[in-house]
Amino acid sequence: MSSIEDKFAKLNAEFAPGQEVRQSIDEVSIEIDKIPGTSVDFSHGDIDAHAPIPGSIEVFNEGFEVGGAQAYTEYRGSLEIREYLAEKLTNFTGWQIKADDQLLITPGTQGALFLAMGALVSRGDKVAIVEPDYFANRKLVHFFDGELVPVKLDYYNTDTRAGLNLEELEAAFKNGVKTFLFSNPNNPTGVIYSRDEVKKIAELAAQYNVSVIVDELYSRQLFDERDYTHLIAQDEINSDNVITIIGPSKTESLSGYRLGVAFGSPKIIERMEQLQAIVSLRASGYNQRVLKLWFDEPEGWIENRIKDHQAIRDDLVSLINTQDGFKVRPTEAGSYLFPEFPKLKVSLSEFVKILRVKAGVTVTPGSEFGPGFENSFRVNFSQDHQASVDAMKRIIQVVEELRQ
Amino acid sequence: MSSIEDKFAKLNAEFAPGQEVRQSIDEVSIEIDKIPGTSVDFSHGDIDAHAPIPGSIEVFNEGFEVGGAQAYTEYRGSLEIREYLAEKLTNFTGWQIKADDQLLITPGTQGALFLAMGALVSRGDKVAIVEPDYFANRKLVHFFDGELVPVKLDYYNTDTRAGLNLEELEAAFKNGVKTFLFSNPNNPTGVIYSRDEVKKIAELAAQYNVSVIVDELYSRQLFDERDYTHLIAQDEINSDNVITIIGPSKTESLSGYRLGVAFGSPKIIERMEQLQAIVSLRASGYNQRVLKLWFDEPEGWIENRIKDHQAIRDDLVSLINTQDGFKVRPTEAGSYLFPEFPKLKVSLSEFVKILRVKAGVTVTPGSEFGPGFENSFRVNFSQDHQASVDAMKRIIQVVEELRQ
Repeated sequence: MSSIEDKFAKLNAEFAPGQEVRQSIDEVSIEIDKIPGTSVDFSHGDIDAHAPIPGSIEVFNEGFEVGGAQAYTEYRGSLEIREYLAEKLTNFTGWQIKADDQLLITPGTQGALFLAMGALVSRGDKVAIVEPDYFANRKLVHFFDGELVPVKLDYYNTDTRAGLNLEELEAAFKNGVKTFLFSNPNNPTGVIYSRDEVKKIAELAAQYNVSVIVDELYSRQLFDERDYTHLIAQDEINSDNVITIIGPSKTESLSGYRLGVAFGSPKIIERMEQLQAIVSLRASGYNQRVLKLWFDEPEGWIENRIKDHQAIRDDLVSLINTQDGFKVRPTEAGSYLFPEFPKLKVSLSEFVKILRVKAGVTVTPGSEFGPGFENSFRVNFSQDHQASVDAMKRIIQVVEELRQ
Repeated sequence: MSSIEDKFAKLNAEFAPGQEVRQSIDEVSIEIDKIPGTSVDFSHGDIDAHAPIPGSIEVFNEGFEVGGAQAYTEYRGSLEIREYLAEKLTNFTGWQIKADDQLLITPGTQGALFLAMGALVSRGDKVAIVEPDYFANRKLVHFFDGELVPVKLDYYNTDTRAGLNLEELEAAFKNGVKTFLFSNPNNPTGVIYSRDEVKKIAELAAQYNVSVIVDELYSRQLFDERDYTHLIAQDEINSDNVITIIGPSKTESLSGYRLGVAFGSPKIIERMEQLQAIVSLRASGYNQRVLKLWFDEPEGWIENRIKDHQAIRDDLVSLINTQDGFKVRPTEAGSYLFPEFPKLKVSLSEFVKILRVKAGVTVTPGSEFGPGFENSFRVNFSQDHQASVDAMKRIIQVVEELRQ
């Protein structure tokens, strides 16, 4: 196999969320009757059930009326909008952001992640990645020819911290890791790194001179009034080695506009812009305008969104916990649950195809998030409340029919 | 210098079109009085002077109303819109396109180019690039660690063909080139490859099994009723080795939506989608909807756009041709002119900074398009007609003051 064929073999996107329509389903011949019910696609949030920030389309239209000046921004994004975001994100994180050289607007948070990894990782570089974590993280390491160094998240053995194996992390750093990438809250489990964990990560990164990319995509959607600690704002860390990634696609349901933001080290931001110049030029100019609504939502809007999602979480967790052989750690932030289910007569990939074809339920298989998660699946429960509960009941019914 | 620092040194975007605002201008101390006049930014087209296809904002709003189904398309883009585009682009090119596996929607044509190069080029691969050609082409080869093999375009020595040095191209192919990337019409000169040139490229690519990426971004805007030959539709070539790139950002002024399309080889399209999954997920969902207007413009709209631009071209070319020491080949398609100017007392980078600061005119220096173009600059003349003529007069005035 040539090196490029090998590279793309590792990028297989067949099971990536949203791509299920491209799966071949010939092999789903298991004798299960169709289970009726409203189809639910748990692979991503339902923005029809949880609508975008009010006024987004009006603000987009304003941007179109502005014309050329809004269409052709600097590659790093409109200065006016970067200034707005710098102020809002300084308030949010407690770290002083300069609009000129510490912040970049990207086509979605995925875009920010790609640029940050491209700015830091080259052939042979060791990159520490948490397992489980966002499925694209590992693919990015492969794409940039880095060497993946996994660090375990023991998310079941604690409820006061995320459960990162800090000894493993230090050993990885000691062993030459140059970049550490992780999501907080963790995707797929929805657990939050404790203040102590974040401070220890900061300390180790400073000690071993490791660059850190932290994906804080869901950090506004905190349940049970939990605390959240922003890595970049900690005294222990050298902020010149940190990039934070965030965007309005999840809690705020602005995913259709493809908007993301990266902030932190001026040196890394500069490289990310150079890379953006050949990857996509800029986030769509008119779309950038919509960022003016972010962190300025109507009074109570975010609080209600969190309350609605916490209620869905509660119902799903209760339902899962009544089932023999199931196990789940309740989401602390964001809209993901990552339940473990009992051993089945079919493989994980067969199971998710059966769920989709026979029960009208799409989930993301655990194998997307790292090795060793063959008995887990991820759901994004930002769905219609009743439909998501009914869909979880259908999942449980299929598991009962297929269990060993 | 580490390998990643070296890589980013080659990606320097300071002189890239649209990035002039980030240039340091301290060194512009030449004694030239400011020349008054309406500022013109020739680095890209002016969509306020040449408006987007009518109805684009209404169609975008329809997309927003559709909601989740429009926001979350497959990574390769909405099937309905791919089917629409496949039909239109089949009619346009004469090559039968299947919507299912031969076409991908991307965030801008830049996005398509990045994905196509990422799908084909890996470390050490030889890539043939025309000089002069679009500035990002060479940067992409560096980014993917390819080896750049330049092929000369002798655009001044002919007016019946673009002037590609076909002997050089064959020698490059014979010498192990795996991928050939070129724009037709050529950027920055605006010349069209003749039928014979395109057929010879097709023949050589087939003979030496070279993959070809052809950027046809400006191929709808043909002047003087010229012919245009689509590479992928030629019998001589194996279409499994070809990707064609096109988009509505130029002639159609839809740049603010960031939309592009790639079509051709199913194998390469598949890889491009796998890569898009980690680069940006998809072109913004609502924005994709706007593609429904493309190739379905109101009667006479495209014809008028071409007529208006041909008239601007004529005035600029006449003006340039009256000047001693200037030389230009008239644009055959698209909105670029690439004039050569006489030797100056200042460097090219000083010259373009002086033009911007003292004459309110932004141009792109020839050095962005390859080595050996130190006495050329590119203008995109999709501007207000009178303002562009006045701005060209100011350029000529500055050259007169600075010439050796």
